[in-house]
Amino acid sequence: MARRGEFQIIDRFFTHEAFGEWQSQGVGDDCAIIDAGDTRFAVTTDMMAIGTHFLPNALPETVGYKALAVNLSDLAAAGASPRAFFLSIGLPERDDEWLAGFSRGMMALAEETGCALLGGDTTRTAEVNGRHAPVTISITAMGALPKGKGLTRAGARVGDDVWVSGTVGDAYAALKCRWGHWQVMPDQQPALFERMDRPTPRVRLGTALLDLASAAADISDGLSADLGHILERSGVAADIDWESVPLSPVLRSLAPGLQREAALMGGDDYELVFTASPENRLRIEQAGLLTETRLTRIGKVCEKLSGDNLTIRSHDGAVIRTGMAGFDHFAGQG
Amino acid sequence: MARRGEFQIIDRFFTHEAFGEWQSQGVGDDCAIIDAGDTRFAVTTDMMAIGTHFLPNALPETVGYKALAVNLSDLAAAGASPRAFFLSIGLPERDDEWLAGFSRGMMALAEETGCALLGGDTTRTAEVNGRHAPVTISITAMGALPKGKGLTRAGARVGDDVWVSGTVGDAYAALKCRWGHWQVMPDQQPALFERMDRPTPRVRLGTALLDLASAAADISDGLSADLGHILERSGVAADIDWESVPLSPVLRSLAPGLQREAALMGGDDYELVFTASPENRLRIEQAGLLTETRLTRIGKVCEKLSGDNLTIRSHDGAVIRTGMAGFDHFAGQG
Repeated sequence: MARRGEFQIIDRFFTHEAFGEWQSQGVGDDCAIIDAGDTRFAVTTDMMAIGTHFLPNALPETVGYKALAVNLSDLAAAGASPRAFFLSIGLPERDDEWLAGFSRGMMALAEETGCALLGGDTTRTAEVNGRHAPVTISITAMGALPKGKGLTRAGARVGDDVWVSGTVGDAYAALKCRWGHWQVMPDQQPALFERMDRPTPRVRLGTALLDLASAAADISDGLSADLGHILERSGVAADIDWESVPLSPVLRSLAPGLQREAALMGGDDYELVFTASPENRLRIEQAGLLTETRLTRIGKVCEKLSGDNLTIRSHDGAVIRTGMAGFDHFAGQG
Repeated sequence: MARRGEFQIIDRFFTHEAFGEWQSQGVGDDCAIIDAGDTRFAVTTDMMAIGTHFLPNALPETVGYKALAVNLSDLAAAGASPRAFFLSIGLPERDDEWLAGFSRGMMALAEETGCALLGGDTTRTAEVNGRHAPVTISITAMGALPKGKGLTRAGARVGDDVWVSGTVGDAYAALKCRWGHWQVMPDQQPALFERMDRPTPRVRLGTALLDLASAAADISDGLSADLGHILERSGVAADIDWESVPLSPVLRSLAPGLQREAALMGGDDYELVFTASPENRLRIEQAGLLTETRLTRIGKVCEKLSGDNLTIRSHDGAVIRTGMAGFDHFAGQG
């Protein structure tokens, strides 16, 4: 949850003085972290529509899998263990074949991660010019946290390492190829498309990082934007070494400018970006091995001196870009 | 959550063997009741769209208020105390005036009931024929329950009284008047429309009934349908005395056939229908006084002998109707 355009809307219209018995660490994180009596849990919510978040011809299995995966990814960023989710689905019409595929994709991931479907709502989408709007999905997922623990975007400290899991930019490159804007070799396409359609929520990694990372976010808006959220919330800056940013072989086969666009600006990878004290390097590498997740150190947290808080440098010291950018559903409207 | 067409979809496509550490009492209730460690809570989720669940010209304050109210009503039916909610909202375009009104309506009710907004997601609705679909809202609300307690639709026993709060049928009559199908005196309209636009979630009553009621549901689909859900899940039948069913003065001013249609088949009232042992009559009446809620005994739970489980009789003993019916988003499509 919580992309940047959304921040502005939520900050502006829905921020109130805290009230009630349950409180969280505040809007602007991947999850709300709630203490209810002795129990601490994390909650996230995401709304997705076919045609906006999914291609119009996306397979129902893909839609079901990914709709849950993006929520599990938010739980992973908080270090929470998935426990339950609630599904609301708006359908233009009842289509049993589509629903069966959607459910297969979703429930396989749910079982794999121990995240039970405990409730839901189905409805018909609104009519526009005589046609019902396409499938709209809203998921709220809940995960358990040990008492007093939980990763947020706040907490990065000057001197921390910046780490990223897996490789970044693949999902964006896949979309560009599907749109026909970019091209890769035909035999490279299936693996690339898989990265867009079936991202791996880093659930086991997230829980392994609970005692190791100082701040974490999942990469839904792009490495620059999501690392930028950590820096903003933590009041620090970061220096990133472009050549260290982990890219897949297929991304490396593209022109350098496209590699940078995909890896820095492209979202939808659902990897984790996190910060941690250099003292924890060895234990973090062990966590990567244990959870079979590639982990790469890509830079350092430093003091914030100017307006921009993110600098990405090439090995020769040249600045590739500064500032932040990411996906904004309402960019230019605010 | 969980209307009848939805049951069929959820039962058919999303019912799995239980897995994971958190489990609930099963799909088909107003809320999931979850034990997480020592903490018990209730969760409900609802998706609503303008044009489907709200009139196209509904005021933003009304939409904001009612979207939260229907979820609080589900918590009330479980006897849970509202604690937190999560809001996903899809917008055709950013409209600050609309959002400000929506937030006012929603947050006033949230504060009044101690239900904090702890997270959310905003997105743009899908495009259909060049137009973005209307506002779509999904809310997941959570409430606290004392350990081991919580009202469900199962639990009604032969010999129990059947009770209903407030009056029923008003929201349906209001809709019929707004459509121009029915007519009431102009000076009666505001109060009637208020019942449709600002239903009162029976939160305090719900918690007061925790130790008194054997089963409960909120009236979202209509008295027949929602009482029917209790009877179905409890494996019993009920005999209802039509003349006891509480109607507002404005509903009583309509023709008898319309009164019955509105009170028995009309949904959207968000009153509670519940069953309780006759031993608890006095304490239930006290709960009504304490929470300033009109409570009316309308019939008795009896053994289920035939296929139909709900019989509604006139004082003279004539059967008005049997069976069940309610609102079904996908009726006829299943």
